[in-house]
Amino acid sequence: MKEIKNPKTLQREMERLRRSGRTLGFVPTMGALHEGHLSLVRRARRENDVVVVSLFVNPLQFGPKEDFSRYPRSLGEDRRALRQEKVDYLFRPLAPSFYLSGHQTFVEARELSRGLCGRFRPGHFRGVATVVTKLFNLVMPHRAYFGAKDYQQARIVQALVRDLNFNLEIKVLPTLRDRDGLALSSRNRYLSSRERKRALAIPRALAWARDEVRKGQRSLPSLKQGILRRLRASKVRIDYVEFVEPDDLTPVRGLKAPFLIAVAGWVGKTRLIDNAIMWP
Amino acid sequence: MKEIKNPKTLQREMERLRRSGRTLGFVPTMGALHEGHLSLVRRARRENDVVVVSLFVNPLQFGPKEDFSRYPRSLGEDRRALRQEKVDYLFRPLAPSFYLSGHQTFVEARELSRGLCGRFRPGHFRGVATVVTKLFNLVMPHRAYFGAKDYQQARIVQALVRDLNFNLEIKVLPTLRDRDGLALSSRNRYLSSRERKRALAIPRALAWARDEVRKGQRSLPSLKQGILRRLRASKVRIDYVEFVEPDDLTPVRGLKAPFLIAVAGWVGKTRLIDNAIMWP
Repeated sequence: MKEIKNPKTLQREMERLRRSGRTLGFVPTMGALHEGHLSLVRRARRENDVVVVSLFVNPLQFGPKEDFSRYPRSLGEDRRALRQEKVDYLFRPLAPSFYLSGHQTFVEARELSRGLCGRFRPGHFRGVATVVTKLFNLVMPHRAYFGAKDYQQARIVQALVRDLNFNLEIKVLPTLRDRDGLALSSRNRYLSSRERKRALAIPRALAWARDEVRKGQRSLPSLKQGILRRLRASKVRIDYVEFVEPDDLTPVRGLKAPFLIAVAGWVGKTRLIDNAIMWP
Repeated sequence: MKEIKNPKTLQREMERLRRSGRTLGFVPTMGALHEGHLSLVRRARRENDVVVVSLFVNPLQFGPKEDFSRYPRSLGEDRRALRQEKVDYLFRPLAPSFYLSGHQTFVEARELSRGLCGRFRPGHFRGVATVVTKLFNLVMPHRAYFGAKDYQQARIVQALVRDLNFNLEIKVLPTLRDRDGLALSSRNRYLSSRERKRALAIPRALAWARDEVRKGQRSLPSLKQGILRRLRASKVRIDYVEFVEPDDLTPVRGLKAPFLIAVAGWVGKTRLIDNAIMWP
């Protein structure tokens, strides 16, 4: 695995590979890798000649009071895991050479960034769209891989690729979960074992809702109340529980067509998100 | 000259050319071509294996009360001129296949878009940055050519390329002028012969300022008053006369280092812009 820090060096190398006719698969990450990330890497490995992983804790997508400085970093382990998956390139830029002094160009997906996490993390998705645009221009991949746990992010990236005519394909892979059901997330490392037990209320509330829908429940207020009750019982401080269209993330009224339940909440000082698509 | 309307078709063709090792030069235009455009095309012809010109009157960069619908169109002549310059590809997308329904992703250069024309045409430079991003992703050129008449636009595109890591080089070529001194612009076609005479006050005021600076004039207020007086004498309705840093377009205080004088004003219903760099 070749490690590159300099953006221009990476871009030249990618240009050379692309010209040689090799296909490039790309997995952007912020490190602190878990099996969710590695599932993306494995899929990229199967579908492309060359696999590039970026590791960059993007300051632009953190709010001033958010966890940028304490975001988990585990470079040694990440490196070992990526080597084991036979990754070809690890791109690990330093912030000052990535956002040059005087940086002022930003990318924004308007409607998709408004609701859900966008309401609670102003500027977050502008940070995401901007970093992803930059990374796509540097790596010039044929395919890029994202996890469905960050559903809103994945939709925004898909819109960005379509709207800005990026010459690549986005693949969104299913959320991976621990045995207890908790969605894999780098931020799970923040949780004490007690908090972790409380956090399980999130996947359990979603699983309960799925069961209810299966049994024929079609009342949005009942489902929502049931979820809220379960989260509150575990003292999850709720940012939102929303029922939305899977495509444009606008609120659904009825529960006839497939819909997404998206949840964000705090367990102690840790913000967790999860979601599930329901097929009534 | 091959004419392509479909964005995907163009992108596939460009990808093929790039992979074959050919260099691509790109000149984005809104048509109604004049010698200024053609000077860009000629330079692109000299510096690249393949020359691509786009012709698209971009609705996104026009305000609701601006001249989008009456913007001059002269496809037949444009085509002949481009053929004569041995252009290889004319990309001429239709708006609905260029901005797909539900388009919501926009690119914005913050500080550079604020002053000068940005103040008078809100949203204009977001439209420019967005269309340029899309065109760069579709054409994937090695070099792209812009005219210095639209100085603020050129600076924004340069910032965009740097900030978003586009793998290409921007070339900004000098403003061309008619014999009478008027900067070439597609919008000059709007001018009656009387209006055209009045419009000459703009280049003449800039030429006067240049002379003054040459003679040692270092008072900004005197220069500005002199320019304003000259424009008003010809009944140019002034949007702005600004003295700014050539790099970041912020107002200059003293006149020691090189500075840019940028002018925008109306002659009848026609908005004209011009600028000149001064070397004290």
